[in-house]
Amino acid sequence: MSEEDIQCDCSCCVWPQCRGVGDDRGGQSEPATEEMNSTTKVEIIKWVVTFMIGFLTGMRKKNYKLKKTSLINDYHPYTNPSAISMCSKDGCLVLSLLILLLFNVGFVVIASCLVVTEPVAGGSGIPEIKCYLNGVKIPRVGRLMTLVSKAVGVLFSVAGGLFVGKEGPMIHSGAIIGAGFPQFQSIAFKKINIKKYGFFRSDRDKRDFVSSGAAAGVAAAFGAPIGGVLFSLEEGCSFWNQKLTWRSFFCSMAATYSLNFFLSGINTANWGYFYLPGLINFGVFKCANESGIGCHLWNALDLIVFIFMGLLGGVFGALFNTVNLLLTKHRMKHVQKKHKAIRVLEAVLVAAVTTTVSFSAAMLLGECRSMASNQSNGSIPLVDESVRTYFCPENHYNDMATLFFNSQEEAIKQLFHQEGKFSLATLGLFFLLFFFLACWTYGVHVPSGLFVPSLLCGAAYGRFVATVLVQVGYANHENSGTFALIGAAAFLGGVVRMTISLTVILIESTNEISYGLPLMLVLMVAKWSGDYFNEGLYDIHIKLKGVPLLEWEVHHGTERLKACDVMDKPESYVYIVSRVSSVIRMLRTTAHNAFPVVSVADGRNLIKGEFAIFLLSKCGNSSVTIPKIN
Amino acid sequence: MSEEDIQCDCSCCVWPQCRGVGDDRGGQSEPATEEMNSTTKVEIIKWVVTFMIGFLTGMRKKNYKLKKTSLINDYHPYTNPSAISMCSKDGCLVLSLLILLLFNVGFVVIASCLVVTEPVAGGSGIPEIKCYLNGVKIPRVGRLMTLVSKAVGVLFSVAGGLFVGKEGPMIHSGAIIGAGFPQFQSIAFKKINIKKYGFFRSDRDKRDFVSSGAAAGVAAAFGAPIGGVLFSLEEGCSFWNQKLTWRSFFCSMAATYSLNFFLSGINTANWGYFYLPGLINFGVFKCANESGIGCHLWNALDLIVFIFMGLLGGVFGALFNTVNLLLTKHRMKHVQKKHKAIRVLEAVLVAAVTTTVSFSAAMLLGECRSMASNQSNGSIPLVDESVRTYFCPENHYNDMATLFFNSQEEAIKQLFHQEGKFSLATLGLFFLLFFFLACWTYGVHVPSGLFVPSLLCGAAYGRFVATVLVQVGYANHENSGTFALIGAAAFLGGVVRMTISLTVILIESTNEISYGLPLMLVLMVAKWSGDYFNEGLYDIHIKLKGVPLLEWEVHHGTERLKACDVMDKPESYVYIVSRVSSVIRMLRTTAHNAFPVVSVADGRNLIKGEFAIFLLSKCGNSSVTIPKIN
Repeated sequence: MSEEDIQCDCSCCVWPQCRGVGDDRGGQSEPATEEMNSTTKVEIIKWVVTFMIGFLTGMRKKNYKLKKTSLINDYHPYTNPSAISMCSKDGCLVLSLLILLLFNVGFVVIASCLVVTEPVAGGSGIPEIKCYLNGVKIPRVGRLMTLVSKAVGVLFSVAGGLFVGKEGPMIHSGAIIGAGFPQFQSIAFKKINIKKYGFFRSDRDKRDFVSSGAAAGVAAAFGAPIGGVLFSLEEGCSFWNQKLTWRSFFCSMAATYSLNFFLSGINTANWGYFYLPGLINFGVFKCANESGIGCHLWNALDLIVFIFMGLLGGVFGALFNTVNLLLTKHRMKHVQKKHKAIRVLEAVLVAAVTTTVSFSAAMLLGECRSMASNQSNGSIPLVDESVRTYFCPENHYNDMATLFFNSQEEAIKQLFHQEGKFSLATLGLFFLLFFFLACWTYGVHVPSGLFVPSLLCGAAYGRFVATVLVQVGYANHENSGTFALIGAAAFLGGVVRMTISLTVILIESTNEISYGLPLMLVLMVAKWSGDYFNEGLYDIHIKLKGVPLLEWEVHHGTERLKACDVMDKPESYVYIVSRVSSVIRMLRTTAHNAFPVVSVADGRNLIKGEFAIFLLSKCGNSSVTIPKIN
Repeated sequence: MSEEDIQCDCSCCVWPQCRGVGDDRGGQSEPATEEMNSTTKVEIIKWVVTFMIGFLTGMRKKNYKLKKTSLINDYHPYTNPSAISMCSKDGCLVLSLLILLLFNVGFVVIASCLVVTEPVAGGSGIPEIKCYLNGVKIPRVGRLMTLVSKAVGVLFSVAGGLFVGKEGPMIHSGAIIGAGFPQFQSIAFKKINIKKYGFFRSDRDKRDFVSSGAAAGVAAAFGAPIGGVLFSLEEGCSFWNQKLTWRSFFCSMAATYSLNFFLSGINTANWGYFYLPGLINFGVFKCANESGIGCHLWNALDLIVFIFMGLLGGVFGALFNTVNLLLTKHRMKHVQKKHKAIRVLEAVLVAAVTTTVSFSAAMLLGECRSMASNQSNGSIPLVDESVRTYFCPENHYNDMATLFFNSQEEAIKQLFHQEGKFSLATLGLFFLLFFFLACWTYGVHVPSGLFVPSLLCGAAYGRFVATVLVQVGYANHENSGTFALIGAAAFLGGVVRMTISLTVILIESTNEISYGLPLMLVLMVAKWSGDYFNEGLYDIHIKLKGVPLLEWEVHHGTERLKACDVMDKPESYVYIVSRVSSVIRMLRTTAHNAFPVVSVADGRNLIKGEFAIFLLSKCGNSSVTIPKIN
């Protein structure tokens, strides 16, 4: 949304700054900005802006939540089961499937069209944010149009019954707000450009605000302000300092509590209080006895089970990533290069298959179980309301339909809190179907998060383990929910390979600090076992996009390399001031696109140690940009 | 505990590395270590060692807790109130005061003697750890003897009735374990030196383990693993990377849950479960109604009150720091330079005054209040047990004695959870007395933490505000505890100026995530208002010690300075290989003690950019060390 964005419309451009030291030097050579930064006034404005980012992120989510609720409640057949279950005859069944298909495909077409017009809005957006914070600008990633496409698109892709989550897009939205709002301008609306408030246009300031925005996104999505900051720290930031931690935390808090304030006010009509922490709520893990003394959700022996679950979760996650990698490669070859309509058609195909599979699985493979047997042990009534009868006799419900025909958040709550409600076969089949459908879906041209589908898939796996353990006689019904939670963490950890931030996010969204140790253990084991096979899904997608991401650690062996080992011979280099024509000639005659910058001193050419310039060779419109050398 | 420690017995020495880049270069020039680090074997050992640090830190604390409990229960008159309250006659009263004095002074003498023999063990240890992690080694700070002196000393200084906490020393202990254990050797026990396990002797590894140890110390003290990591990140680490975050988190978790496991096992005789999170436990903040729906511990309007409380808390904290700064300066002039016995005598004086003041304040200024009036509203029985009758008629208790004659943790719980139990006059007087006594105590030659006294002092202030608000009609009794907590946070924040880590520590130790926003707000306001007047107490003490700490942000104006502005003319410099005699001559002829290192290339002297050498001029034994240039 600033000048650099305009200049840089090629595949991607890298900030001409090294980590750490380069960052500081960059600051020093922009004396005007630095001077302004040191004044108290700008510091105060920064805080106010940070608050506004948080507040806006929270608000975006509130609107989203409200819109989505009304949309689903009014039009969507899932939440209106009477339409289906009333007609138990054969002909009518086909009709209901067709209606369902019509709705879902319609929604998905809208989502897909939005993404086709604004391709960066596809997927979860977390890889893009990770690249941005690493110093690589992917074009259009921070535009207002992207925000709109993403926000509206995710609404429709979730409503369209796809197995996608809304958390990734939420985080991307937060980051866009962070990128755009402090600029007080927008490329889409050129008139909104209040020059005199144009602080914060240095790369450093922009990065800082984007980190805060991403943190606020996580915070609002999960009600996890601390987790948001740690997410930003773990996933995103190559550039970090202490003040930024604190400002991100402030931003996350602002987002969490603005959302909380308005949601609580609207839902309970009791303004001024804070009941509803985030968009996702996993419910309260309670003990059977009320006092809480002598209560245990897990014990020391369970830890060993958890470790094995983590191992297996890592393997599942690695499998998910491998399958998705192969699919994405195939998609890049056969779908992305062809006409835009093909991309929409693929989304339609996925939506149709997803709907048909869940519809028929619920019908053919579901098991009718009695409600009465479970009503006794004081399960939480809210969850019980959402079981689906679906062709079962009265007082019975279909367990497969309960999982497939609820919103994913509701299904997760079912798996976490309902005791003994699902048969082993149902859980296993659900896991398998969901696994492959979710894997197919991630990468389709719709806005699609990964968190909630992974959690649901993992919860089914965890619940499967719990059910086996109960049948073996090891565990009791009381803590099946804990196993489901651990399974969810293991699978999600195996897919995305996040560690500390995911632990904290899950602790905060379950509001149960005592889950700290098991969650940490299982996520660590899942990461290790997954890393044995491949990389995390975000990293895989970053690599597929061809973004030169700088890792935290150098690869084995590279610490011995010298500059001359990777440089071409004879060396081509640029001066600080170069003609465009000579740069273009150089790009045409060399295969690479990174050149050292040379300055003349004492009649000798000196290569300035830390600074290399990255030029872009793949520009369609042949306008070549030389980023300012800071 | 390694070679550098031996060499460097002067006032302090600085690692010859710059931040960031210097750190990496340091790594590159130690190829042997780097190669080892890259092997999986060493990585595994690192994790195991990290776990052991956490475990040992947890264990240290468990032993401590058990020892302290038995010590106080058996010998200490405070917890044996019958001894005092039985003799209500005048002569007997003097006798009990004398007995009390005898015990307290005796305990404090032991603590003080330990510190006099090992001066680094005095104080909270957090400034020392902060310096260490910043790259400045204070001699003996990581020795086994320091650990012993500190751990035993804090036991006696707390038992001696001084207004000191045990958290700072705990954190220091954790850091020492982190520094010492991975070395598999000790200077004190020269025989324990298993050469073949001598990995991790590079500065980087040592720093990493010390950070983890400090994090584990916080984690075990407060039951706050996330807070521990953030503490380490916020207060300590100038050198930080992503992997370290995760390893610190693992270490903190290991410490928290080892402590939890053993404490729970011993106290409830029910092994394998986890009930008791940390050494400090602030109790559960509960709503009056059991369901939790419609429950609010605070609302949006309260936030405005909290902000004002934060402002005032910052002012109180700044006052505390100023008074302590003046006292410490006075102490450095008149106590530290004289004979060791003077230091012990000062500690004795403080102990005697503290005991006398609390004894007489309870007797003369306390108010007898009826127990019956408060019994009805379902307050938590555990807290009620610890009120002190102390010369009051039956079914009455003395509110001042309840605050002074309980352990500080118990008094904090009283202020947090007992409704309407303390008169305004008592709270105000207690705050004033405690404020000045605690301020006097911090800096006396005993191991003394600052967290719990500050929390108690602030809780009294918060409770005072709550009582005023209840009398004015704004608040109700239900959330007086919230105000006490906010007051505690405001005061502690005003003193130490920690922000994100303190917020998270307090959230974790209250186990109430919904306090996030008010705690963050109040700590932020307290920091800002305090920073208007002076620096945080730890920074003040670091400055008084004359340690060259590198701040996160450069001071205003310094970014324009060039090297020639701070260098002497004519320049004195050292070569990489220098004679000791020439270095000593240079130190004698110049007033400063930092010199550029010069290497000879092409017959010209080149100053290597990042590396400067720091030599020490104040060595008693005149052995001068040149740190290795990495």
